[in-house]
Amino acid sequence: MKLDPQLALDTHPITESGGIRILLHKNALVPWFVLVPLQADKSFRELFELPGDVRENLNNLIDGLSKYLLQTTNSQKINTAALGNVVAQLHIHVIGRHSLDACWPKPVWGNLQNSSSYSPAQLLNIKTDIVDLLDELG
Amino acid sequence: MKLDPQLALDTHPITESGGIRILLHKNALVPWFVLVPLQADKSFRELFELPGDVRENLNNLIDGLSKYLLQTTNSQKINTAALGNVVAQLHIHVIGRHSLDACWPKPVWGNLQNSSSYSPAQLLNIKTDIVDLLDELG
Repeated sequence: MKLDPQLALDTHPITESGGIRILLHKNALVPWFVLVPLQADKSFRELFELPGDVRENLNNLIDGLSKYLLQTTNSQKINTAALGNVVAQLHIHVIGRHSLDACWPKPVWGNLQNSSSYSPAQLLNIKTDIVDLLDELG
Repeated sequence: MKLDPQLALDTHPITESGGIRILLHKNALVPWFVLVPLQADKSFRELFELPGDVRENLNNLIDGLSKYLLQTTNSQKINTAALGNVVAQLHIHVIGRHSLDACWPKPVWGNLQNSSSYSPAQLLNIKTDIVDLLDELG
């Protein structure tokens, strides 16, 4: 199953792990991962539709990325959310927030008035970090 | 550990299950549960802090309440989120959304301009439903 075109447009592909695409939102104003569980023959709409092993992998990725954001960025709080009102394909946001960030304390959706881009070097660093993180998660 | 005063103010208590308080947001414009994992001696800030059994129970409650909302309200999509930018005590929103609801497709936080209240009879019905649901979940 293909990644939703809007999600593809909004994000940089990072890697894949156990049936879950790991994406990085292009807006570098906040550190923001998007996880998309995809199988060859289907995508999902709701968390409860996920097979048990994919759900477990998803939880491990959410936890690993949350700790990564708290340890390697200046994030103070993690926002985790599966909304899907605009893009119905199940995708889970894992976002690092800081009390001085661009729209604190509001949620990011609809409240980021500006944007910033990652440099190629920054993107490469993040990809390397996440590959290392996945190795640690096993 | 006590429930955060803001969460207590914003919600009706429904019941408790396996260390997780089940609350219903007072604004009846959208069907909106809030789950708060609380232990006698501690509360939590992030999902990854939860003991394994509480995390598993949380996932079961999220799934059960999601299906309940889709089956018994006119919800078409579930929004699940742990944000915590305003109230740091870990709480997980499980919200039923509909394309004609009060702020679709925006997230509910900060976008509900009005409010509506549950009647005592409606509240009693929901409490009965959730107790039945917990029986089914075992």
